[in-house]
Amino acid sequence: MLILAGLGLADEKDLTLRGLEEARRADRVYIELYTGKWHGNLRELERLIGKRIIELKRADLEEGSEKILKESERKRVLVFVQGDPLIVTAHNALLLDARKRGIETKVIHNASIISAIAEVGLHMQKFGPLITIPFLARTGGRAPRSTYDIIKENRERGLHTLCLLDVMAEEKRYMTVNEGIKTLLRLERRFKGGVTNESTKIIVFARAGHKKSAVVYGRMGELLERDFGELPAVLIIPGKLHFTEKASLEDAL
Amino acid sequence: MLILAGLGLADEKDLTLRGLEEARRADRVYIELYTGKWHGNLRELERLIGKRIIELKRADLEEGSEKILKESERKRVLVFVQGDPLIVTAHNALLLDARKRGIETKVIHNASIISAIAEVGLHMQKFGPLITIPFLARTGGRAPRSTYDIIKENRERGLHTLCLLDVMAEEKRYMTVNEGIKTLLRLERRFKGGVTNESTKIIVFARAGHKKSAVVYGRMGELLERDFGELPAVLIIPGKLHFTEKASLEDAL
Repeated sequence: MLILAGLGLADEKDLTLRGLEEARRADRVYIELYTGKWHGNLRELERLIGKRIIELKRADLEEGSEKILKESERKRVLVFVQGDPLIVTAHNALLLDARKRGIETKVIHNASIISAIAEVGLHMQKFGPLITIPFLARTGGRAPRSTYDIIKENRERGLHTLCLLDVMAEEKRYMTVNEGIKTLLRLERRFKGGVTNESTKIIVFARAGHKKSAVVYGRMGELLERDFGELPAVLIIPGKLHFTEKASLEDAL
Repeated sequence: MLILAGLGLADEKDLTLRGLEEARRADRVYIELYTGKWHGNLRELERLIGKRIIELKRADLEEGSEKILKESERKRVLVFVQGDPLIVTAHNALLLDARKRGIETKVIHNASIISAIAEVGLHMQKFGPLITIPFLARTGGRAPRSTYDIIKENRERGLHTLCLLDVMAEEKRYMTVNEGIKTLLRLERRFKGGVTNESTKIIVFARAGHKKSAVVYGRMGELLERDFGELPAVLIIPGKLHFTEKASLEDAL
């Protein structure tokens, strides 16, 4: 059996009772931490579940997933994943491969930034498709048109855009808020669609679900000057604001 | 202090360790269960946290929230809410009111259907805005154009639409999958935009995060004949499918 168990947003205290129980029952427990910065304590998580946890690299769950699949054929294998486990497409592919081989699978859901953003006070039904602001190193230094077009179409429909910040796992590079804003401005300079500029007001949501979370609403130019502290963080480019949404954001100033 | 703590998707085992700890520390614990069917056991939840839990009606958190706010001024008040607590807009308004009165607030996030839908195998970045399929009793028997237009625009952009099913809390009426599909077909008959018809393939995701969850992919006309068992459930109207999305859905047949 292969179990993917979400770790939620901040640390080991975000584990659910179901996740805890399954980890205690498992024969082998792995953790993958490469999709973002985790603020938990691995030793403490091991103490909670009463066994050792082996850390996985990206390749162990993608090209090199054979080992884990093989093991899941005979044993109860549990993999801890940040947030809600299936937001990362590769995890879904792994489950699909497992089921093809007749391996029983289970998913233990947990909190994700995808729903936690409701905390900033925007209405969930007004979010268009989300994007990931990419490291331009991935795209040969060129700003990608597709990412820009999604923000543009969302704004034209009055919809909000959740912008995740890129992670380059192997290099342990995590995009900062400031790099994210700079990249958005660079997209605008290149494609000139009038979507955002230095005076556009956006939202920074840092450390959702952590003790020191922060929601900041301000102009991109001004936000560029600020230090938002530790990651994780996301940006939200608002569409047309309802007056109750405005009230929440003004509270966040 | 006012704490909103998510219950996650299925039952008391979805509580997080942080939620458990906060509920044990709280002076007063409430639960609101009117936004959907909860499959947990209230007595068992009380046993876990070691105190009584008082059930709230919709009015206690909306028009009549004065009592809870007043109490939060002097005591640690915790309210359990299904899923991730702020998906319901009224909960955000409550927090905002609390902060205006100088009451400290805290949110304990948990799993939500908004991110759990990744389990069906569709890519999260391809979801357009979500809708709630309304009971037509709410709209004087008339099919609402705005709901229809959102599905239509999403389909035109190749985006998926998550359709939540309406709940009429006071009447304890929970829309079934079959009623949801019927309402979608009724919208089409009224507005004739060529968005869905009996042969359109959609996804039913029933009991996400429960032991007996189910993902079914099929034509609307055929799905109308099936019994999907207990609620909760959501529908997803897919946009343009990537081949890996197709592979996941075919696995779900």
